[in-house]
Amino acid sequence: MTQLQSAVAVDREDSPRMDRLLAPRSIAVIGASSDPHKISGRPIAYLRRFGYSGRIIPVNPHNDEIQGLRAYPEIAAVDGPVDLALIMVPAERAAGAVRACGRAGVPFVIVVASGFAEVGTRGAALEADLRAAVAETGVRLLGPNCLGMISLRDGAVPTFSPVLESAADLRPGPVAFVSQSGAFGSFLFGELHDLRIGLSHYITTGNEMDVSGPDLLAGLVADGGVRVLLTYLEGVTSGTQLLQVARDAHVADKPIVMVKAGRSTTGAAAARSHTASLAGDDRVFDALMRGHGVVRVDSQEELLDAAQVFGASRRTSGRRLTILSESGGAAVMMTDTAVDVGLEVPAWEDAWQARLDEFVPAYGSTRNPVDFTAALLTDPGMLRAGLSTAIAHPGTDMIAVLVGNADHFADPLLEAIEDLYAATDLPIVVVWTGGSGRPRSRLRECGIPCFTDPVRAARALGRLADHSLRPPLPTPLRPDDVDPAAAARIVGHARAEGRTALDEQESAALVRAYRIPVTDSAVARTAAEAVTSAHRFAAPVAVKVLSSRIAHKSEIGGVRLGLATPDEVAAAAAELLDVARAHGEHDPRLLVQPMWSGPAEMILGARHDPALGPVVLAGFGGILVELLRDSCVAAAPTDHETAARMLHGLTGAPLLSGIRGGPALDVEVVVDSLVRLSWLVSDLGDEIAEIDLNPLLVDAVGAGACAVDALVLLRERR
Amino acid sequence: MTQLQSAVAVDREDSPRMDRLLAPRSIAVIGASSDPHKISGRPIAYLRRFGYSGRIIPVNPHNDEIQGLRAYPEIAAVDGPVDLALIMVPAERAAGAVRACGRAGVPFVIVVASGFAEVGTRGAALEADLRAAVAETGVRLLGPNCLGMISLRDGAVPTFSPVLESAADLRPGPVAFVSQSGAFGSFLFGELHDLRIGLSHYITTGNEMDVSGPDLLAGLVADGGVRVLLTYLEGVTSGTQLLQVARDAHVADKPIVMVKAGRSTTGAAAARSHTASLAGDDRVFDALMRGHGVVRVDSQEELLDAAQVFGASRRTSGRRLTILSESGGAAVMMTDTAVDVGLEVPAWEDAWQARLDEFVPAYGSTRNPVDFTAALLTDPGMLRAGLSTAIAHPGTDMIAVLVGNADHFADPLLEAIEDLYAATDLPIVVVWTGGSGRPRSRLRECGIPCFTDPVRAARALGRLADHSLRPPLPTPLRPDDVDPAAAARIVGHARAEGRTALDEQESAALVRAYRIPVTDSAVARTAAEAVTSAHRFAAPVAVKVLSSRIAHKSEIGGVRLGLATPDEVAAAAAELLDVARAHGEHDPRLLVQPMWSGPAEMILGARHDPALGPVVLAGFGGILVELLRDSCVAAAPTDHETAARMLHGLTGAPLLSGIRGGPALDVEVVVDSLVRLSWLVSDLGDEIAEIDLNPLLVDAVGAGACAVDALVLLRERR
Repeated sequence: MTQLQSAVAVDREDSPRMDRLLAPRSIAVIGASSDPHKISGRPIAYLRRFGYSGRIIPVNPHNDEIQGLRAYPEIAAVDGPVDLALIMVPAERAAGAVRACGRAGVPFVIVVASGFAEVGTRGAALEADLRAAVAETGVRLLGPNCLGMISLRDGAVPTFSPVLESAADLRPGPVAFVSQSGAFGSFLFGELHDLRIGLSHYITTGNEMDVSGPDLLAGLVADGGVRVLLTYLEGVTSGTQLLQVARDAHVADKPIVMVKAGRSTTGAAAARSHTASLAGDDRVFDALMRGHGVVRVDSQEELLDAAQVFGASRRTSGRRLTILSESGGAAVMMTDTAVDVGLEVPAWEDAWQARLDEFVPAYGSTRNPVDFTAALLTDPGMLRAGLSTAIAHPGTDMIAVLVGNADHFADPLLEAIEDLYAATDLPIVVVWTGGSGRPRSRLRECGIPCFTDPVRAARALGRLADHSLRPPLPTPLRPDDVDPAAAARIVGHARAEGRTALDEQESAALVRAYRIPVTDSAVARTAAEAVTSAHRFAAPVAVKVLSSRIAHKSEIGGVRLGLATPDEVAAAAAELLDVARAHGEHDPRLLVQPMWSGPAEMILGARHDPALGPVVLAGFGGILVELLRDSCVAAAPTDHETAARMLHGLTGAPLLSGIRGGPALDVEVVVDSLVRLSWLVSDLGDEIAEIDLNPLLVDAVGAGACAVDALVLLRERR
Repeated sequence: MTQLQSAVAVDREDSPRMDRLLAPRSIAVIGASSDPHKISGRPIAYLRRFGYSGRIIPVNPHNDEIQGLRAYPEIAAVDGPVDLALIMVPAERAAGAVRACGRAGVPFVIVVASGFAEVGTRGAALEADLRAAVAETGVRLLGPNCLGMISLRDGAVPTFSPVLESAADLRPGPVAFVSQSGAFGSFLFGELHDLRIGLSHYITTGNEMDVSGPDLLAGLVADGGVRVLLTYLEGVTSGTQLLQVARDAHVADKPIVMVKAGRSTTGAAAARSHTASLAGDDRVFDALMRGHGVVRVDSQEELLDAAQVFGASRRTSGRRLTILSESGGAAVMMTDTAVDVGLEVPAWEDAWQARLDEFVPAYGSTRNPVDFTAALLTDPGMLRAGLSTAIAHPGTDMIAVLVGNADHFADPLLEAIEDLYAATDLPIVVVWTGGSGRPRSRLRECGIPCFTDPVRAARALGRLADHSLRPPLPTPLRPDDVDPAAAARIVGHARAEGRTALDEQESAALVRAYRIPVTDSAVARTAAEAVTSAHRFAAPVAVKVLSSRIAHKSEIGGVRLGLATPDEVAAAAAELLDVARAHGEHDPRLLVQPMWSGPAEMILGARHDPALGPVVLAGFGGILVELLRDSCVAAAPTDHETAARMLHGLTGAPLLSGIRGGPALDVEVVVDSLVRLSWLVSDLGDEIAEIDLNPLLVDAVGAGACAVDALVLLRERR
């Protein structure tokens, strides 16, 4: 074993705990400058200015003292443990510095220098050396080409980022933010500050040569002081790790609010050119993330809006929104969007409206949305009374207060809001339009989410409700009647013959090993055998070409359906044997099957996604999948509840209950088949590339379903 | 004829021209107070403060002088013409004031008092009297229960709205804003001011007892100084007038940016309780407005964003967006949304990328989106060079510049943007994230659209492109081979019998009069007649119950298809005659038709929409219409281009070109049928409630299409 090989073999289980990075007790700055205005001088200046509670260790061979602190000539000379080294040297010297840190037992380093893989060939060589240094030493590395970390919790700010240059009264809090883009991160950091959202960590990940976005998110989910995770991602190499982070966050009730750029093909190409990371198939990514409770948003404003509502750390127990508004018009707009995002704005019961009637003007409305009219401004007791009533009203799960152009009347309104916010656990948001912004700032200082647009507030509340009421994670339980050994034998047989395609008979046998209903069949090599086989089944039968070399047999005329008599079977079989020979089968075989019919045609599938691992898919056949790509995806294995929720989320879901005079379908059998398929692809995960059951014919409730074709492809051996 | 009747008969053609309201040469304030701080004193104070260029006429029986101006005891005493009277008296005295204005020849009045229909029974009586005063006098009335008008162009501000109380340096310009909600209008007015959007008019319409939102929009479209119309609508009583306004605005290239609240059922109910106006069927409303070029938006921020890009008065000649960014991440997000809204972000040709290579850092990107990296901040020449190159680049139709946290480096960046904005006619928008807001304000002072979020900027540019490249209005030309007289005779026959339902034979004859392909048929009263009739057609045939009393004959088993032999026809006919008798037909009749088949099933329909007049609809049959409500709507009559665009906008449109092995369909025949149907419903508009051709079977290109069922319902006579 070479040294490199043994280094690569460093077991990641032995990786230092992420808290040494996220909450370091000591930080060394390698290449620290005495000049606090130089880039390499800023980190020491920032650490001191932000009152870092740990030990600050300048390392510089040319000075004994840096910015008033004792400096060390090299990392090896430092007495006592160093949790984190910020390496400020140029790219050419970074690998050497990492090796020195490794020898000194430093568990984490941050490399900020650019000039690595992101600049092409020359940089790629430097990055390869840096990677080797990490592999040799087991040091975990954040970067290169990153801005470092800002932890407001303890003043741990190993960074040179100019965002700290002018920052005053930054607010610590429970919200962490991990960005794969430095510039975008800086944009957001400034906005989060302006919104007075309390931050624990802000970290940019640069080239992610070693420590990745998901690594950091995993560490932050485990961090007791973090309650909300914000992240900007451009690409993810380990989707399975990200899914595990999402699971942990789901259990810990910590929302992950994610912007994932590169949704569109054009955008994904731009993201690749930007970070050289793989954007992947966004549809599968999106479905799996949402399925695990991740709050996916599309813009920085949506990220900020979600950060506000989640930063308030309240949850809702239902979807019923009460709107208290100075403007009937703004309230109607908010109602429209609230309904769009799945909230309800139900009219209040008469008795409760009567309570409002005591102080709401006759030309307003007490129905919900409650229209106080502009009388709200001159009668500040009205808002207090209205909010108290809404909090007491049992049909209210969330409250939105809408006011505008109210700066002249602000103080009593703000006092009423602040008092009643403190008196309840219900989520309350304020939409305060126009004016100086001072009232908004005051509310945000109190931790009360405050918006300028009612539509954005409605969307943010919708996300809060989706998170609060999110379905449980799947708890998959392997069915005890499946036969993994039989499945493995079938795969082994194809592998032994050097094949990656299973023929239809093998494919059917594979899924049958997991008790997924698939049509019965018999193999025939002659027309006479086909006729004999057909006698096993009730007429009519289907006859198909059987070949692992022909994936799309109907496209070559290799399928004959509805054969009612022995003569028809014999004639069709003779023709199909010719078709098979014409497509290169020297010893052609046929499959004889009974005909199965059902009122609906579905497609079940499974894949091994390169980034996200085994997944199952389902959809309706026909134009729904052709025109709408109406399909659903879940990580495998999954459970019956999740599979049922997937199916009921399809655009075509009304077909399950029966429309256009059709019967209600046997959904239970489809759900069960999907769960079994998820176990199959999961158990054989390393082997399977793709499984397609297309079509799965679904009959009425109680009458079952049956796959009448099956295709299994194995993964290519590397 | 009573006096009231003769007053009602005032011909609206003789209405005063709207410019007397929108650009009044003299304004009387009836009930003006000497105290500029009282509500009734504010209008005179405002008119003077905003330097109203016309004559200000206080009317007050108790003072000879009001706020330094000569006052008149009554409107009749005023010498010289009065274009507009602002009536500041309480609700009880408003009708009297209107009558006095009428006698004095004042063409327009504004009634601001509340206490009319919006407060219930008592107010409704007052509003009825006010309405009578208008009817008697022919005076046009804005309000009641409104804030009045603010025209910044000439300082005509007949209003008591507190939004003017603190307003400084309001900016006149080409953007007009009409709001059906006073409070929402005030919200927006403040925001428009903050964004430095130049306003011509801001008008709230109150109860719209007489002058409506569409009346004002019509006047503003005709106003040469207005280039952009913003409007907030909650309900529209005359949709046809609004469509005409949209047509005029389309021709004049004046975008109408519209928020129409009450999209959802809940929201519509809230809108009704708020203004007592009818929200109508939003799907039809939305389709017709968009079809006429109206820019519909869903939130106040979207309205403001659109106001910025349209306020800049530039148009684009294509959809190709070049993004110049400090942040690759922000650029990727903008790209995703740009693609969502139908823009393109194409990679630049190599030769043009080479020009950028001269100054863009190697770790950036020249591909488009162009990633300058944060080097943009410290090398201000880079933005100037990049913008110059993008303007020169022939594949660039629009440009977005993205910077963030750049306040310290702002001046040279702003200078570059301002210089190059002035040097081109291309639309340029800036996304300037974070910081003090000063750079954004400066850009907006220069009229350069400036955003904080790249996603919002992308959506606004999408709307600019949609407007700039909007399809022409339909130019319908009545086909010369239609027979309106025959159609009228068929309708007259049913009317003579007191029927509003036509039977299938009559319905088919009606559409056949407009040469819409509909299946041939013969009437039979006995089984023997049915057999004889069937001989006229090639087998197989269909036999149906024929009755104007049975609208849904297939639901009662009144249809038999695919009858191949005389025996089958006779048996089916006998059964169907029994079915008809069982459903109350004493003298039952049958319809015998040839069978028609086609690979696709469509539905064509026409309606007389209560608010919007005659419309045509089209969609695919089957699950597309059931699950997706996949249909399209256009105002009737329409032309072939518009009808084709409608069909190609359906979700099912790929079926037209043939998918899943199906042939390309005979779209031309469908388009032609839709146009003919639009003429039929338009020509017979007063008569028709509803026409359904369901299904229209569509065959392959060249093979035509044929309606195999037709149902016509006439409007109930009032």
